[in-house]
Parts: sequence; structure tokens; C-alpha cells
Amino acid sequence: MESSGIAIFSPATIANLSCGFDVLGLALEGIGDRMTVGLTPEPGVRISRITGANLPMEAEKNVAGVAAMALLQASDFQGGVVIEIEKQILPGSGIGSSAASAAGAVWAVNKLLGEPFSPKRLVGFAALGEALASGAPHADNVAPALYGGITLIRSYDPLDIARIHCPPLLYVTLLHPQIELKTSDSRSILKRTITLEKGIRQWGNVGGLVTGLFTEDYGLISRSLEDGIIEPLRSLLIPGFEDLREAALGAGALGFGISGSGPSVFALSRGEETALHTEQSLISCYNSLGIPFKTYTSAINKNGVRLWNEQTDILI
Amino acid sequence: MESSGIAIFSPATIANLSCGFDVLGLALEGIGDRMTVGLTPEPGVRISRITGANLPMEAEKNVAGVAAMALLQASDFQGGVVIEIEKQILPGSGIGSSAASAAGAVWAVNKLLGEPFSPKRLVGFAALGEALASGAPHADNVAPALYGGITLIRSYDPLDIARIHCPPLLYVTLLHPQIELKTSDSRSILKRTITLEKGIRQWGNVGGLVTGLFTEDYGLISRSLEDGIIEPLRSLLIPGFEDLREAALGAGALGFGISGSGPSVFALSRGEETALHTEQSLISCYNSLGIPFKTYTSAINKNGVRLWNEQTDILI
Repeated sequence: MESSGIAIFSPATIANLSCGFDVLGLALEGIGDRMTVGLTPEPGVRISRITGANLPMEAEKNVAGVAAMALLQASDFQGGVVIEIEKQILPGSGIGSSAASAAGAVWAVNKLLGEPFSPKRLVGFAALGEALASGAPHADNVAPALYGGITLIRSYDPLDIARIHCPPLLYVTLLHPQIELKTSDSRSILKRTITLEKGIRQWGNVGGLVTGLFTEDYGLISRSLEDGIIEPLRSLLIPGFEDLREAALGAGALGFGISGSGPSVFALSRGEETALHTEQSLISCYNSLGIPFKTYTSAINKNGVRLWNEQTDILI
Repeated sequence: MESSGIAIFSPATIANLSCGFDVLGLALEGIGDRMTVGLTPEPGVRISRITGANLPMEAEKNVAGVAAMALLQASDFQGGVVIEIEKQILPGSGIGSSAASAAGAVWAVNKLLGEPFSPKRLVGFAALGEALASGAPHADNVAPALYGGITLIRSYDPLDIARIHCPPLLYVTLLHPQIELKTSDSRSILKRTITLEKGIRQWGNVGGLVTGLFTEDYGLISRSLEDGIIEPLRSLLIPGFEDLREAALGAGALGFGISGSGPSVFALSRGEETALHTEQSLISCYNSLGIPFKTYTSAINKNGVRLWNEQTDILI
């Protein structure tokens, strides 16, 4: 790695948040990829090393590479970049693995170039990396990874992103069943049409969740964490989903749902204690299934991608 | 009217607010019905007088009567009520005429009984009156009429209502074409299914509008006032709709859409001056059509139904 490189932390993210399919997402604290990115005199993007996952080293086949190339093409920088990735987020886990790499790459290159691009432009570049992973330029993971906190993609065309207030006591618990579930598979299970009635309930819940977040009304947040459209279909692909939901809500969680396109599931809780209690309940529930899994409990990451801090960032 | 009666003002309301079909609504200032309501020793509800519109005097056929009866049945009061209604809002105008009568009746009776019921219960009673008018117990007009400001119906079953922050500079302009358009007709034009793609855009806009309202981001409010599902169908029933939109946006309005199920249309503006300018543009646009119409410009009513104040309330 060239001496001009910077080390960064790029967080895992949860997209959808039950009712907000394709529009809502949040960033996690303490769970994310570490990347080192440097400028080089040679044009183009070079992936010099990937640890932690078996991913393509060719820049044009790698989400971080594609995202960084999109940024370089839009900039007037004549040189190139070299990227080293320590994957901590397993690809296919449903907590924004590809988004973390794409967001981290564009954030770091933008930083090294003197920040010529706005966060919204960075989301656009990173979403092109996402398109490589999922077939569509989704931004519901890259937006929270770059902005931190809780974000809303109001519109994809044109791209319009809003930050939503993050209540201080909101904690996230994750359970990642170590099974393979491709985003493209979990998208193909969806139906192209929905009833107007279900649509009304869904946008009522999105309005309720956003209102609950801004007013720190945890009861309203809890009641709004409902998805009658996507979850009934996708949850069929996740072993033990209904038992996990019962375990989470029984432990006092505000709500429970699928993280992104799964297979990871998440719960939101009021306070760290309830989140840790929820984690224990999910562990007890899943221990009986014989499927390997991991769990995490995390606060919400307020900052998004940031410079790596050896003192406070612990690779998990 | 018995001496124990109270005089109240019950505001007109705008339901839907473009993207928030069946869930969002706001209350208007200065436009509303005046009602006088008193307790009587005789059980039941009696409508003693209605001026300003040709509406049924039989309590069980009148929205205010049905709503008041629902409240009385849930209370332990042994007597009855007598209601006098001065309609200022034309039935079928699309600005919550029946909702104003229903909301006003239950608010007044509750007040006279010492406020045994919460605002949410009052919405439930008033929605039963609404069911008489439109065939379904809608609450997107009665909720803002009773709560004031901007409200969200997160869920109808169970009823769940949230208040949304009201940016101080938000003004409403209305144009009411004096044509008849029944709620049941404008509901029957709707399709029972929508594409998932349009649903996603709609709940993105609801999230954007709510976020814009809480953060007083007028640009975001403007971009979110979009409805790709209901408006393309219902606007066909409103003469000159697209010209009116052009006139409103050309005058600087943040957004333009159908009020409730129409035929009234509304625009939201930042500041009273722009709202008045928008009103002039709508008038110029509609003058050429040869259809009688009325226009109003109003702030948002923060309080909802209130005691009538001779000094400040002007019947229009």
C-alpha cells in the first residue's frame, strides 16, 4: 500500500426496516469492513488484496472497484487508486456486504481527492457498484453506510435522500443464519403487483415509523414495524422465522423483521439491555435448529463510513 | 336551543395530501361549519335546524346525528342532545364537509359531558358518521378536524393516529369547482391493485413528506407531493386539472393535487404571499373554463374543532 493511503471503517447496514421496502435503511456500529485506499499515479482501479471472503480481484467485477471507477470517471483526477479490503461482513448475509465495500471505496477516494463530491453523488457512484451485486442500482444500503443513522431514499430517479432522526435509545439486534440466500433469488420471489389496500397499510406504516423516529415515540415505532407485502413471501426462505419473531417480541423488542433481502433478521429495541436480552432469546431459539448462526447487538452508527480508529474499532 | 348549548367551529380538511391516500390529512383555518349543540333530558339525538345545505334532519340519516349517537351509546349519559348546523362547507366539495359535521358533533357532545372520551375515541365515533356519507368509516378527514394540524392514520384496524409537525410557513390554497362529484364515484374509478414499483415510489414519498414536515424542509415537502397512483385516475374527473397544476406550480406553489376525492384541488405554499399568488393564478386559469368555482387561502388550523369565537371567526 502506498504511503498516501488511508484506512477506513465502512459499516454494515439494514435495509427496508420492515415497512420501508427499498426506501429505508440504517447503519450499524461496530460491524463493518475495514479498507485501505490510496492514490496511485497509474490511472484505473486496482484491488491489491482481499481478506475474509472469496471475491473477484478484477476491479470491473468487484463492487468496490466498479464504484471507485464510476467516481474516478466523474472526477478530473488523472491517476488511479489501489484498494485493500478486509471483509468482515460475509457476502450474502443481508446486512449490506457489497454496499459496505462500495460505500467505503467511494468515501475514501473522495476523501483523498479533497472531497469534490457530495454525499448524494457518492451514493450514486456506490449504487453502481451495488448494481453489479444485485442487478439493480439499489441505494437503501449504501445511503445509510455513507450518511450514517437512518436514511430514506425518497426517489431513485432522480436520486433523493433524506436523513431521519435517530432516537438515542434505539438498539439493533441481528441474527445471521449461515445459509446462502442470493439477493436475486429473494427478489424473484416477490410479486409485481400488490393490492391497493396493502399499499395503503404499508405507506401508513412508513409514515408512522418516520413520525415515531422524529418524535422518539417508541410505541409508534413498534406498531409501525410491520410489513404485509414483502415479509410474508421472503420469510418462507428463512428457517424458523416465526419462532424468531416470537422470541424477539417476547423478549421486549419493539419489532422484528428481515434485514434487507435476508437471510439475516433484525430486531429493534428500546435500550441496550432489552437488545441484549433479545439477542439471548434469539440465540436460545435458534440453538435448537442445528443451523450455524451469528448474532450481534449494536447501537445505530450516527456517522457512516469513517477513518479507521485502532483504539475504538474492533474487528469482529 | 337549550341554554346549556355551546357554539363551535368545525374546520374543513384536506385528505390524502397527494402521496398519502387514505392516511394523511390537514385542517384548514377560517373555513368550516358552525354548530350549536346542547344536552337535553330526552334520550337520543335531535337535529333541530340545518342551514346552508339540504341535508337530512333525521338523526340516523345525518352524519352528525350518527356520530353523536355512537358517542352517546358508548357513554353512561342517560339524556340526549340537540344539534343545530350552519353548513358553510358544501357537501361533495372534497374538503371534508361530512367530516366537519361529524367531528363537530362528537367534539361538542364530549365537551358537554365533561370530556369522558379521548380524541382517538372521538375519531372513531366521527368515522361512523363518515361511513354514512361515503360507505366506509374513513378517518382521514375527521382526524385532522378533531386534532388540528396535520395527522396520519397509521392504521384503521386498530385505529392508530399520529400528529405530524406543522411547519409555520405552510399555507394552503383551495379551488372548488362547483360541479358534483360523489365520493363513491371517485372511489369506484380506482383500481384494486397497483404495481409494487408504484407502491415503493408512493411510500418513499410519504416518508419524504413526513420527514420534510418534521424538518421544515420545504424543498423535500415539494418533491414529495407526488401521487402516481390515485391522481392519474381521479384527475380525469376534474375539468382543467393539468392546467391548474401548471398555474399553481408556475406561481411558486410547493405542490398541487386533489383534495380528498375531489372535485376541489389544493396547493401548498411556503408563506402566505406565495399562497395568495397561487390563488390568483388558479383564478385566472379557471376563469376561462366557464365553470363556477370558489377559492380560499388559509393557514393550517393547529387546534381543530374549537368553541366558536364571535370576535375572530368569520363565516365565509
